[in-house]
Amino acid sequence: MDNKEFRKQAHLLVDWIADYLDEVENYPVKSQVQPGDVFNSLPDFAPTESEEMDQIIHDFKTKVLPGITHWQSPNFFAYFPANSSYPSVLAEMLTATLGAQCMIWETSPAAAELEEKMMIWLKGITGIPSCWSGVIQDTASTATLAAILTARERCANFESNKSGPEEFKGLRVYCSTETHSSIEKAVKIAGLGSSNLVKVKVDKDFRMDFVALRQAIESDIEDGLTPACVIATLGTTSCTAIDPLSEIAKITSRYDIWLHIDAAFAGTALFLPEYRSMIEGIEHADSFVFNPHKWMFTNFDCSAYFVKDPELLIRTFEILPEYLKTSTRGKVNDYRDWGVPLGRRFRALKLWFVIRSFGVDGIRNKVAEHIRLANWLKGRVLEDNRFELLAPVTMNVVCFRVHPLGIAGIEELNRLNEKLLNQLNGTGKIYITHTKLNGCFTLRMVIAQTYVEQRHVEAAWEQIRKMADEVCA
Amino acid sequence: MDNKEFRKQAHLLVDWIADYLDEVENYPVKSQVQPGDVFNSLPDFAPTESEEMDQIIHDFKTKVLPGITHWQSPNFFAYFPANSSYPSVLAEMLTATLGAQCMIWETSPAAAELEEKMMIWLKGITGIPSCWSGVIQDTASTATLAAILTARERCANFESNKSGPEEFKGLRVYCSTETHSSIEKAVKIAGLGSSNLVKVKVDKDFRMDFVALRQAIESDIEDGLTPACVIATLGTTSCTAIDPLSEIAKITSRYDIWLHIDAAFAGTALFLPEYRSMIEGIEHADSFVFNPHKWMFTNFDCSAYFVKDPELLIRTFEILPEYLKTSTRGKVNDYRDWGVPLGRRFRALKLWFVIRSFGVDGIRNKVAEHIRLANWLKGRVLEDNRFELLAPVTMNVVCFRVHPLGIAGIEELNRLNEKLLNQLNGTGKIYITHTKLNGCFTLRMVIAQTYVEQRHVEAAWEQIRKMADEVCA
Repeated sequence: MDNKEFRKQAHLLVDWIADYLDEVENYPVKSQVQPGDVFNSLPDFAPTESEEMDQIIHDFKTKVLPGITHWQSPNFFAYFPANSSYPSVLAEMLTATLGAQCMIWETSPAAAELEEKMMIWLKGITGIPSCWSGVIQDTASTATLAAILTARERCANFESNKSGPEEFKGLRVYCSTETHSSIEKAVKIAGLGSSNLVKVKVDKDFRMDFVALRQAIESDIEDGLTPACVIATLGTTSCTAIDPLSEIAKITSRYDIWLHIDAAFAGTALFLPEYRSMIEGIEHADSFVFNPHKWMFTNFDCSAYFVKDPELLIRTFEILPEYLKTSTRGKVNDYRDWGVPLGRRFRALKLWFVIRSFGVDGIRNKVAEHIRLANWLKGRVLEDNRFELLAPVTMNVVCFRVHPLGIAGIEELNRLNEKLLNQLNGTGKIYITHTKLNGCFTLRMVIAQTYVEQRHVEAAWEQIRKMADEVCA
Repeated sequence: MDNKEFRKQAHLLVDWIADYLDEVENYPVKSQVQPGDVFNSLPDFAPTESEEMDQIIHDFKTKVLPGITHWQSPNFFAYFPANSSYPSVLAEMLTATLGAQCMIWETSPAAAELEEKMMIWLKGITGIPSCWSGVIQDTASTATLAAILTARERCANFESNKSGPEEFKGLRVYCSTETHSSIEKAVKIAGLGSSNLVKVKVDKDFRMDFVALRQAIESDIEDGLTPACVIATLGTTSCTAIDPLSEIAKITSRYDIWLHIDAAFAGTALFLPEYRSMIEGIEHADSFVFNPHKWMFTNFDCSAYFVKDPELLIRTFEILPEYLKTSTRGKVNDYRDWGVPLGRRFRALKLWFVIRSFGVDGIRNKVAEHIRLANWLKGRVLEDNRFELLAPVTMNVVCFRVHPLGIAGIEELNRLNEKLLNQLNGTGKIYITHTKLNGCFTLRMVIAQTYVEQRHVEAAWEQIRKMADEVCA
């Protein structure tokens, strides 16, 4: 493929892309293919000869596209969103073209410095302390792993050439029972042992019970164990419960424990002044992560990780072979030492495009509208006596179930709601997913998609009610 | 920004992108900015109001671009390349548009199944055993971490709820002194302790000394330690030395040790039948990684990780919270359980575009041409008595230095070559980086860029000779 053919194909693709984004709500939001459908439609061996791009793109449309779940559809209310937006796609086009490897400053100075600046912008917008430092990670899973590793090394006094299993014995990590599974994965990866992850109970609103946290820590200390890290979640995955940060921070300060804040999804709510109270106490914390790639209209992957003391992070990850030594070392940020992978994409560019193109007010307005729509939906759930709310609506996630009169058994209710979920998703008209809250099969409706409007939420609610009629009949 | 404006801007951008790729060799390949230049050109606060895309792209061209090192320039001979190509950029445009989150099969069936198929294609092309399973990771660093974690858990008998520091005491990992720094980083992350990484000496050609490996393992066993993992490198970072895999595999088989093969850069050479001997013995290994994002014309990130037994990998990473339970579980590949991060981009698409657009023969021919050009350069180095070769040219990396008559001291020679390197890179005409081999400051010239031709290598050599005249004068 030469430059001329590329130009032609790229223009054709741009028109397809613009059409797609314009019409994406008409696609079945959750792919309706069966396991094996796509796999079996493709040959088992790579072609020896070059194929025409027309043919490849034709196959993309006919074979791959039916197997895609359309995360950019305004009818997507599942999981948490992986939002994109027009400026973000433009930036990703440039990122792919430049193909710059951003492991250290020297390998692309603009990437390192734009990243530094974007982290400063995000601090200013969200209220994260201005003296902290930020870095873009791929995912919150990796950022949380970085936090737990730093906490681990801190307990072993950063004796990087000495610390090993001997020093890591009895290190304890605390989170709530509602915390994301990535915490358990990180504890396991860090070699601390899953049994050293303490899952603290939650209150009736699914927030960490800070009295129980204090008791667990004190009991561990009595037993000769070492509390290493507490993870507070702002916006749990199931129902966006907000752990009481300022109370938790008092405890971690008192016992000198690393406090990591996981606000992967909900961090974007900090654009709104009325949500700032969520991070009261952050000055006593050590690290904070939120994902612009979830609710901030920026393509995955783009996870913003902030730390109070970047030196501790660097000492956790730094290894300096000869082939990576440069004359600028120490004068600039070499972000490869701020996380797990060495290689890094130019991810700051899309943040820059998104923030400037929307403007802070543009993002703020969209986020506020999502929260308004969630509260509208909450109102509908409350006024229909066949439905019930299963958790407080703290921002834009509504947890509910159908609960017809006469059905009291939890098993039967769970089966009924699972059936409702599957039938709803089977229509291809909306996509929602589930969780369990106090053993109850719970439908989660997340209103956070870039292009979602009132009419989509109204149509979704209409669809849910109609399907509930069928399922309960 | 609405759909109409996006369409307009995307078309404008396509023309800029095509022009850029056409003219990229005319840009100064290594950015000439100073620390702070880009950072200081940008405001400290995010704009409140939306800005016009014309302005944003104008700023990209005037403020960011001068700070970019042009990895897609055919004058880029530094590090290892992070290659892109026309079909890869087209695929990345689609990936960004779909914005599909590919953590599990259900979240985008086509992404999971295309990934499975592409890994089958790569096995067929490279000679990796067909009974192995593959998965795309972000980087070789992460894949190697996965290998070491699996080896660690295997030693602890996968007692996932029990294994912790107690079980990890005395686990030993082996690699050569020439192995990539990511091994050390992974050992540290896995909590095994840096002192449990044994760096085995190399022979005169920088290949792992397998007799020394056997001795180290036997001595450790005598001392009551547990050999957990050996990393064999095919294509070391400094000089692409190729560890003697079949000899190493005999040792790991005998002592039942996990054998991981790191072919991050050089794996692409397996497209050529004459390089297949590199992986003799692979059937006795356990895992293998190579990066299509280095030398296979596929945008970063795309690291292909293959394992003999995927069940062990899954048992290492699997954690199953309620909100990720699906009805297809067990029938399909849920790749989130195959690595560190939960979230995953749709990375198989670009592999599909690249392999089909080039055809296997197209990639093979390009790779063979790079190797031919490296050998051409090696000939020039050998015939100019001011220069000397510092390592065998095993494929497409040439390690050399200037060594004028009358200078014998290693310190003086190192300073001279460092000066030569800095002055060469300062011209912006070529970009090469260095390593140290036996204490000698070594210039590395990597010939692997997508668009590199004989004329670029000739011009580079001319530039090096001219600059050597100046530096040695």
